[in-house]
Amino acid sequence: MERIPILKMGHFLLVTIQVDLYDRLAMDLEANLIREVNRTGAKGVLIDISAVEIVDSFMGRIIGNIASMSKLLDAQTVVVGMQPAVAITLVELGLELPGVHTALNVERGMELLQGMIISDDIIIDDDDDTFPEKGFDKDQ
Amino acid sequence: MERIPILKMGHFLLVTIQVDLYDRLAMDLEANLIREVNRTGAKGVLIDISAVEIVDSFMGRIIGNIASMSKLLDAQTVVVGMQPAVAITLVELGLELPGVHTALNVERGMELLQGMIISDDIIIDDDDDTFPEKGFDKDQ
Repeated sequence: MERIPILKMGHFLLVTIQVDLYDRLAMDLEANLIREVNRTGAKGVLIDISAVEIVDSFMGRIIGNIASMSKLLDAQTVVVGMQPAVAITLVELGLELPGVHTALNVERGMELLQGMIISDDIIIDDDDDTFPEKGFDKDQ
Repeated sequence: MERIPILKMGHFLLVTIQVDLYDRLAMDLEANLIREVNRTGAKGVLIDISAVEIVDSFMGRIIGNIASMSKLLDAQTVVVGMQPAVAITLVELGLELPGVHTALNVERGMELLQGMIISDDIIIDDDDDTFPEKGFDKDQ
């Protein structure tokens, strides 16, 4: 199985990284994810790395690339589920994932994205589809 | 990375299978998932198998076990994202995943689970204890 599935959930795309990202797999993930952002018009990308025990500079760069590319297509990227040890390593290595938002878990990541979408789209208001009821049943 | 992450999303747990399930990994997944259902009080389990190209009898049994165990803890299991080739193989092998609901993708799986939770809640409602029909529909 050499493909990382991209799950659409409402306005967001969810990716769970469970395997070591080597070159081709990472490139494929980048390409597929950006294609899906474009195809679905997703407003956010959630990358779950709770199963990841080591984030090296390569993986850091891939995540950074995804965030930058998504941004160009008007989607925000949130990395969720980072293990404490990974956070320590990232800071010690000086890899601080610029441009990438983080959240403790998927639920909080979704809340964060929702918040970002609302603040972006605060002007856009759905047209009000209220149909004035014309035929009331008059009981009495 | 030898762990399949279990993501909590609202009332549901989501698992994405991306790697071949060998014995220990499958047993760990079963145990962790059931522990999470118990810990979180989740009402549904979504298993995404969109990256899975071959479902053999072992994997079929694991999915069936998860569904049966979750049921005992009052959670429904929905398998989502099955590839057409996998569906063909399952039927040809006579492995029809009894007790497991399926849906085309995660979004539809969530809708299905939401529907099941609502119909459960209606049954629990004790204002009116005579319901002509309970509205269980067996989904293919």
